[in-house]
Amino acid sequence: MGRWEPNARERLVRAAVDLFAEHGYDATTVTEIAERAGGLTKTTFFRYFPDKREVLFVGQEIHSRLLADAIAAAPDSATPLQAVAAALDAITATFSGDRRDFSARLKVVIDANSELRERAVFKRAALAEAMTGALNKRGVPDPAASLAAELGVRAFYIAFDAWSDPANQQTLADAARQTFDELRAAIAALD
Amino acid sequence: MGRWEPNARERLVRAAVDLFAEHGYDATTVTEIAERAGGLTKTTFFRYFPDKREVLFVGQEIHSRLLADAIAAAPDSATPLQAVAAALDAITATFSGDRRDFSARLKVVIDANSELRERAVFKRAALAEAMTGALNKRGVPDPAASLAAELGVRAFYIAFDAWSDPANQQTLADAARQTFDELRAAIAALD
Repeated sequence: MGRWEPNARERLVRAAVDLFAEHGYDATTVTEIAERAGGLTKTTFFRYFPDKREVLFVGQEIHSRLLADAIAAAPDSATPLQAVAAALDAITATFSGDRRDFSARLKVVIDANSELRERAVFKRAALAEAMTGALNKRGVPDPAASLAAELGVRAFYIAFDAWSDPANQQTLADAARQTFDELRAAIAALD
Repeated sequence: MGRWEPNARERLVRAAVDLFAEHGYDATTVTEIAERAGGLTKTTFFRYFPDKREVLFVGQEIHSRLLADAIAAAPDSATPLQAVAAALDAITATFSGDRRDFSARLKVVIDANSELRERAVFKRAALAEAMTGALNKRGVPDPAASLAAELGVRAFYIAFDAWSDPANQQTLADAARQTFDELRAAIAALD
């Protein structure tokens, strides 16, 4: 019960995505996820996640911190959009090519369930909020801070959608940088 | 049971907000809401809403349609941002001054509960999506359409937050127009 399970968190996440993909989110129980993760127990599951849904959104806090830290670490001379670009570089660097297949499967699972889609929208808002807060701390006032953060989050998700297609050849870092530039151009051209 | 109840929907919404404010969202049952709404039944409640949470988000579909219709009805010569401004005028016109107190109470209830905050973020995304779709139909491609829609939704919510403060003297329409202009200026100044 209380024993240390190597990589339990990651094994649980992968087991959950597998089972949700096979049987659907609603039909899968926490006990089944724990078992599929190499004979773990429900108790172990709840040591890592508050409920079945959160297993898919474990990245929210890690990603929020990563984005905020990168903005805080940007040089004093960086403009708001340059600081956001640095945050994009920091987060996309953690998505190596071998995560592409997993990301694609996760996306299919989330898209198939309204409760999960709703939770995903909330994660996105949390990431934007983390960047906005970090920009505010650099002295960037609202609405400039929240608009810059929104462009960054938007670039990340558009690039992520493209990147998680197995046919895509770009790195996520390159896709996000390119998308961010496209969004900047599009917003400048808005009338 | 099957009899017609005048304004049942609105009475249920107001009863729910009252009870959530008094006893909290989690502690309130659908039966209590129906009773408070002038002796309605649980059956009547479920004729209007799929669950306890949705009673607070009944406006999502109505507002989505209102925004999309206004964008569709904008003159051919309207730019994307002018079409979004017309959508803002259409939605804010439905918030008369006597709704201000109710809006303020609704906001307190939503802010106090993470499940409701999450649902509110989803409503916001749905409104942006409705506007994006309507702009796409006018021939505005993405990302211009989704960026213009985002600015509109953002202006609406910033203005709504300010307006729902009882000390505020502006109409919501004026507040939204002013905020939209401020966001456009902030975007133009972003670097």
